[in-house]
Parts: sequence; C-alpha cells; structure tokens
Amino acid sequence: MLEELKQEALAANLQLTRDGLIHLTFGNASALDRARGIFAIKPSGVPYGALKARDMVLVDLDGKQVEGRLNPSSDTPTHRRLYLGFQQIGGVVHTHSLHATAFAQAGRPIPALGTTHADTFFGEIPVTRKLTAKEIGNDYEWNTGGVIVERFRRLNPLEQPGVLVNRHAPFTWGRTVAMAVESALVVELCAQMAILSLRIAPRLGSIESGLLDRHFHRKHGPGSTYGQKPGS
Amino acid sequence: MLEELKQEALAANLQLTRDGLIHLTFGNASALDRARGIFAIKPSGVPYGALKARDMVLVDLDGKQVEGRLNPSSDTPTHRRLYLGFQQIGGVVHTHSLHATAFAQAGRPIPALGTTHADTFFGEIPVTRKLTAKEIGNDYEWNTGGVIVERFRRLNPLEQPGVLVNRHAPFTWGRTVAMAVESALVVELCAQMAILSLRIAPRLGSIESGLLDRHFHRKHGPGSTYGQKPGS
Amino acid sequence: MLEELKQEALAANLQLTRDGLIHLTFGNASALDRARGIFAIKPSGVPYGALKARDMVLVDLDGKQVEGRLNPSSDTPTHRRLYLGFQQIGGVVHTHSLHATAFAQAGRPIPALGTTHADTFFGEIPVTRKLTAKEIGNDYEWNTGGVIVERFRRLNPLEQPGVLVNRHAPFTWGRTVAMAVESALVVELCAQMAILSLRIAPRLGSIESGLLDRHFHRKHGPGSTYGQKPGS
Amino acid sequence: MLEELKQEALAANLQLTRDGLIHLTFGNASALDRARGIFAIKPSGVPYGALKARDMVLVDLDGKQVEGRLNPSSDTPTHRRLYLGFQQIGGVVHTHSLHATAFAQAGRPIPALGTTHADTFFGEIPVTRKLTAKEIGNDYEWNTGGVIVERFRRLNPLEQPGVLVNRHAPFTWGRTVAMAVESALVVELCAQMAILSLRIAPRLGSIESGLLDRHFHRKHGPGSTYGQKPGS
Repeated sequence: MLEELKQEALAANLQLTRDGLIHLTFGNASALDRARGIFAIKPSGVPYGALKARDMVLVDLDGKQVEGRLNPSSDTPTHRRLYLGFQQIGGVVHTHSLHATAFAQAGRPIPALGTTHADTFFGEIPVTRKLTAKEIGNDYEWNTGGVIVERFRRLNPLEQPGVLVNRHAPFTWGRTVAMAVESALVVELCAQMAILSLRIAPRLGSIESGLLDRHFHRKHGPGSTYGQKPGS
Repeated sequence: MLEELKQEALAANLQLTRDGLIHLTFGNASALDRARGIFAIKPSGVPYGALKARDMVLVDLDGKQVEGRLNPSSDTPTHRRLYLGFQQIGGVVHTHSLHATAFAQAGRPIPALGTTHADTFFGEIPVTRKLTAKEIGNDYEWNTGGVIVERFRRLNPLEQPGVLVNRHAPFTWGRTVAMAVESALVVELCAQMAILSLRIAPRLGSIESGLLDRHFHRKHGPGSTYGQKPGS
Repeated sequence: MLEELKQEALAANLQLTRDGLIHLTFGNASALDRARGIFAIKPSGVPYGALKARDMVLVDLDGKQVEGRLNPSSDTPTHRRLYLGFQQIGGVVHTHSLHATAFAQAGRPIPALGTTHADTFFGEIPVTRKLTAKEIGNDYEWNTGGVIVERFRRLNPLEQPGVLVNRHAPFTWGRTVAMAVESALVVELCAQMAILSLRIAPRLGSIESGLLDRHFHRKHGPGSTYGQKPGS
Repeated sequence: MLEELKQEALAANLQLTRDGLIHLTFGNASALDRARGIFAIKPSGVPYGALKARDMVLVDLDGKQVEGRLNPSSDTPTHRRLYLGFQQIGGVVHTHSLHATAFAQAGRPIPALGTTHADTFFGEIPVTRKLTAKEIGNDYEWNTGGVIVERFRRLNPLEQPGVLVNRHAPFTWGRTVAMAVESALVVELCAQMAILSLRIAPRLGSIESGLLDRHFHRKHGPGSTYGQKPGS
C-alpha cells in the first residue's frame, strides 16, 4: 500500500547520500500521507546502496507499524512527534552533515549571515536545549522531538524549516519530503559558509532585516516571484 | 532564434554545476548577442538536471522577454544592468560558491595574495556597498546591478572580471560567458586560498605590484605570451 | 587457501580508497581467521587500482608468511601485535585520513563532542605516547603495536575501536574487518567535526555522560535497539 | 619521435587533473629523456580534456623546440632550469594545488609534522626567496627555476623532491615524472594536514629526527624495506 509515498521516501533517502549529507547509515527521511495519518520511513541500519521502495516501513501517527517486515529507523518517534507538533509538514529529514552537526555539537545556532540563508530560513537556524537525564533515560527519541517542538513554540516551522538538536545533529522538514531534503542541504551549506565568514570577520553580525525579508519573501508566500507559476 | 546563443548559455549553466559552484538552483549564467541587444538566460527555479537549450529565455536590453515560455531567472535585471554598464562584456555568471560567498557575507574583498589570483584579476576582487532599504524595496535586482556598476566607476571590468555583492554572493563576467564561467571558478579558488594563506600568516599583505603586473599581462593584452596564437 | 578471508581483506582495502580515507598506498587492512591464527593483509606498496584477492598475503600470528608471492604490508607486525593483544578482534585498518592524522600529528586525542562520536566510541579516541628512540630503531612496526596495546591497558578495545598513533596516524579494528573500515570512517568524520566544533566554541567540553551512554548502548551490547535483529 | 616519453608526459598531466591538483590549465608536467637531452611538456593553455600525446611539445635542454606545432607551456624555461640544475631528475610537475599554494602565497615552508610527510620528504618542504623586480622583468620563468636551484644549494633534491615558489605555487620532481606526480599529491596532503594540526596545537614543533629518519629511509635508499623487490 501507499506505493507512491514509499517511492517518495526512498528517493529522499537516496538523494541525501548523493548530496554527501549522510555517511554510512547516519540519517533518515520520511514522507507523510497526512489524510491517512501514515508515514513511510527508512528501515533501521540498512545500507543505502541496497535500499528498495518495498523496504520502507509504514508507521501511523499513533506509532503503530502498519506495514513492513523490517524495523523502522530508531529515530521514528522523533519523526512522529514532529508530524504531530507541526501540522503543515509532510516530510522530515535527519542527517549528521558535517558543518551543521559541528554547530549542533557546539550548542550554537547557525546565524543568518547572507542571502543564501535568507532564501530558505527567515532568521537563524535555532538550536534546542539539552535533554535532561530523565528525557534521555526514557523515550529518548520521542523526547528529542519534544525539545524541537518546544523550541518552536513561538516560531513558524515553515519559515524556519530546520533545527539543530543540541549535541546531536540537524533535523529539517517541509510541506514535502523533497523540500525537507533541500532544506537539509541549505542547512549544511549555510553552516559551512557561516564558519568561513566568521573566520574572515569574527565580529560579523546578522544580515539586515530588510534584506532578510526581501529574499525570504521573494521565494515564499503570496508575493513570491521566484520560479515558474504552477501550470505554466 | 539565436540557437547558438542559447546553447552557449546552457553549456555555461551546466559547467557551473559540474564545477561544484552551484548547488540546487542558486546561480545562473547568461550570454549576450551584443549586435542584436538580446541575451539568453536560465529560466527561474528550474533544476539543472532537466535544463535544455530550448528552456533558455531570450530577453532584450530593454528588459522585454522576446522568446521563451518560462520565466527568466529572477536575477535577470542584474544581468541586464551589467550588460548596459559594461559595454565590452558578452557573458555574466552568478553563483553562491562557498568561499567567495563567505567573503561577500563578511563584506570583505578577496585580497590578491598570489599569482593564481594575478593570472585573472589585476588586483583584489572588490566588494560592493550594501544596498539601502529603498534600493532593496524597489527594483531590488536592478539595483543590485547598480551597486556593481557604481563600484566599478574607476575600475576596468575586463581587468577585474568579478565582484562580491555585499551580504550576497559573487558575480563574474567576460567577453564571452565561457570566460565568465572560468572567472567564477577562479574567484572561488582564490577565496579558498586567501582564507588558508591568512590562517598561516594572519598579517600577510598583497602580492607585490611587479609580480601582479607580470602575471596579469602574461595572459592579457597585446604583449601576452600565454596559450596558442589564434589560427595556429 | 582461505579464499573468503582474502576476499574480505581485499574488499576492505578497496572500500577505504572509495571512501577517500587512503591516498596512494598510505594505508592497509587485514582480516583474521582467529581459529587458524592466520590473517590476510595487503601487499606492500602495490597500487590499489591493480589489487586482486590473490595478491593478499597470508601471515600467521607468529609472523610467518604462509602464502603469497608478494611482500606483506610493512605495517604487518603492527597488525599482528594488535591481533595478539586484543583477543576479540578480527580485522585491523590503518589509514592516513586527513583530519584524524592531523590530531595524531598534534599528539591530541579526538574529544567526544556529540552523538555521532558516541554511536561508535564510548569516550574520546585516545592517542598513544611517542615511541622511544630505541623502539624506533628496532622492530619499529612491532613496537607501534606495542604502544597501542599499552595505551589500552585500562580500556576496552571493542568500546573504543580505534587509536591515534602519536606523530603518525589512526589505526582502527573490530570484530570483522568491515567493522574496522566503518570505524576508520567514523574516526575521520569525528575528527573533522571536532575541529569545526572547537572553532565555533573553543572551550567546548565533552558530551554529557548520560547522552554518551545512551547513544553507545543504543547500538552496542545486549540492550541495543538499533538495526535489524539477526535472522529477521 | 620519443612516443613513449610523450605518453609518459601526457599520463602525468592527466593524473594531476584526476587527483584534483590542477584546475583549468593551472599546471603542467614534463618528462625528460636525459640521454638525448630532450623533454616532452604540455602545450600552453590547452584544456586537459582535449589533450593528446601528439600535442606534447618536445624541447631540448638548450631551450629549442624540436617537435610540436603548439607552443610549449609558458613555464617551460622553469622546467629546463630544473633539469639543468638537478642532474638526477627525470620529471617535473607544477600545480596550483590549494593548500600547498596557500603556504607558497604566505611565503612559509610546510613543516614536517608527521610520518606521512617523512615518508616522502626528509625535512620541511622549503620555500624560495622572492624574485627581484629585475628577475621578474626579464626571463621570469627561467629565473623562477633559478631561485629554486639557489634554494637547494645545500639540499638534496631527491631527499626533498619539491619546493614552494614564493607568492606562486609548488613545483615537484623525481627520477620519473610519475614520481613527481606522486610528490605533488604528497605536498598537497601534507600542506592540508599541517594547517589542521597547527589549528589543533598552534605551538606544535617538527617531528623528532629519529622518526623522520626511520620513515624516510624505510622507503628510500639501500636499506629500504617498503614495497616489492624489483623482479619479484
């Protein structure tokens, strides 16, 4: 069932390895069918080279595995928590991409320093608080989703489609999993450029709000002018 | 019409992705037929993998789209402004290549530190001033071209075939779009080497003017000795 | 004889070059048949492109070459010493991967800064003491294994499956050579991320022990939940 | 004539681009037939993709072009000067590889920090003095070779098979051009690792002389034990 959803999840997982964002099995992507409340996710610990659409595991939003002979990714509860917390999203991606993970390990947000960043993120890429010992001890992956949702209490997940989990690594999302994959790449590129810019100018502040606004809304929202009109 | 021009623009766009200078759709290249006052430019937001010569959009120097069913790149007014401001150029390239963009975000020029730089740029790779709130609010892309032309009031665009737009990224140009592509790669390589050299020797000054002159004129101008004589 | 063992050693050597962990002939991998006390190792100085399973050299744990017309890797005594010192391992890998080797040259351990590290290493990646002039002068490669085993007197080689040899480069190991290859990649990635994290936050301390424990034991030991159950 | 020599020079030039040591046309390799006093060198400014063995230009040690319809590399006089100054070498390579060039631009030698370096270079990779205005003004490329030979007055070019030309980039050499290519890669890797090691430990000194000696002589000279015996 849900062949198209499984194909979409597979394509996202494979694109992440082609983009060099995932090494070994350090990452995963899922795609949600919001109407049915079911998402397709990568099986746990299976090498990417051998991955087939039929290996994708179907899980519902109550956490029940509804199809698939393999165990789903160990991060499945994090994905589920994000789908429950962010009603507008249809895809979630997790990577350990090098430069973004370096910021996550340091517990620092990725500052918005230029228009590359502003084209996708309306402000810095935030970092969560650390999990407590208790949150680590029980339902760790579910609680990982919890600190992300908590961090976004006053943020719009479609305006800042990604986060760094403290000491861990980035998660990104979007209306579709393909958009979450794209955001995962943007997070990595912006992390790398931020490190370089700060080496060149250590006291560099954030991009001016007028330019941030101009670039973000050139690509997003009703007044956007970027790309092709649907149906054209 | 202008099939050859569209082929040239397509080839430039594809070369930029092969060189790793463009990720996703973050960049564009155009080629100008100066006699007809028409340039061929990449359509907006179309993935590079699917790009065909017939997708290139033809725009005249008054900004009118003269052929093509797709929207041209959102940066088209910047290209147009450069073609109007710099009479000797026939190609424009825009990328968000990582190290050059890091300098642009920091608002710092790329210093001329060695002969690799001097072979293509007769001095530092300059950075524009920031755009004002008003320039960002109206005709943003046209004004982006404006601050570039303003920066080159006392510079020769063929001796310094590229610039960093403050908080944004590099633009390069040349007599042909193929030369603009080559300059885009040189800008990125020189940015990376400058960061590394300054880490090794933080107080390093610019290359001595005699050596700068020797290398630049070995490749450019009437006394050049590099390469093969035309027709040989 | 031992065709499968030679195939396994060959596959490991080739994977290391595909992963970019070995340049030229700077590295080697071996696979041990513990029951027979024989290991298959790369021949010395043979380019990777031309390597065949039949080129693998068979050496026993007394150091005697039992098959193969080529000389074994010059690091063979180091591998042998590790197989003798660490009874649970079945594969050894040596690379000069760039970021890990940078730590080795500096004589500094790779600190455990995040969960990517904790998934494979239960604590920092240690560094050996320097060899003495006498240890360098006689049986240098055997003594290289000796300082590694000495460094692990109070460490569990399966919980920290790798080490940096001071002024030299990393060695990794595992129950199988395939696992040693995977650890070699993790060492390199963690080294690169550690350098980046410390640039972002120079005073950054190690990952909290609760999170280190949680991630390590998610993948290792009787309570592990990662991956697929054997036979599933 | 000298088909084999031209093939050897071509293979070296192509290997350098495959290794990522040469971008665009920024580099060249030549192979010498010492008995005939003729070397084969890359033509000037020809893209690597189109290079054929018959394009290689034959030049004698007096600087006369003895075969080839294309102009030889503009760096030909530097190669010739090195062949005249270093009697034991049979190949010369010039690249602008990024990390080595960063050291050259900074006017700093690459320090010997570990065994990867010691396997090929018996000590630091030296840097030349700057050329004088007069040396730049006349016979610039010949004088570039001159400052290299001057720098090696008390050094053995086979024990330190490469140099950084100040403000410019590395040159390497060897008994064969294939060995010069290998040294060009080692120079780049050691430059990158040196930058990283010095970031980890800013006051790091050179490798201890006993270990330098052990590694260099493991691979070079009558007592070497690395690799396969000729004829084996």
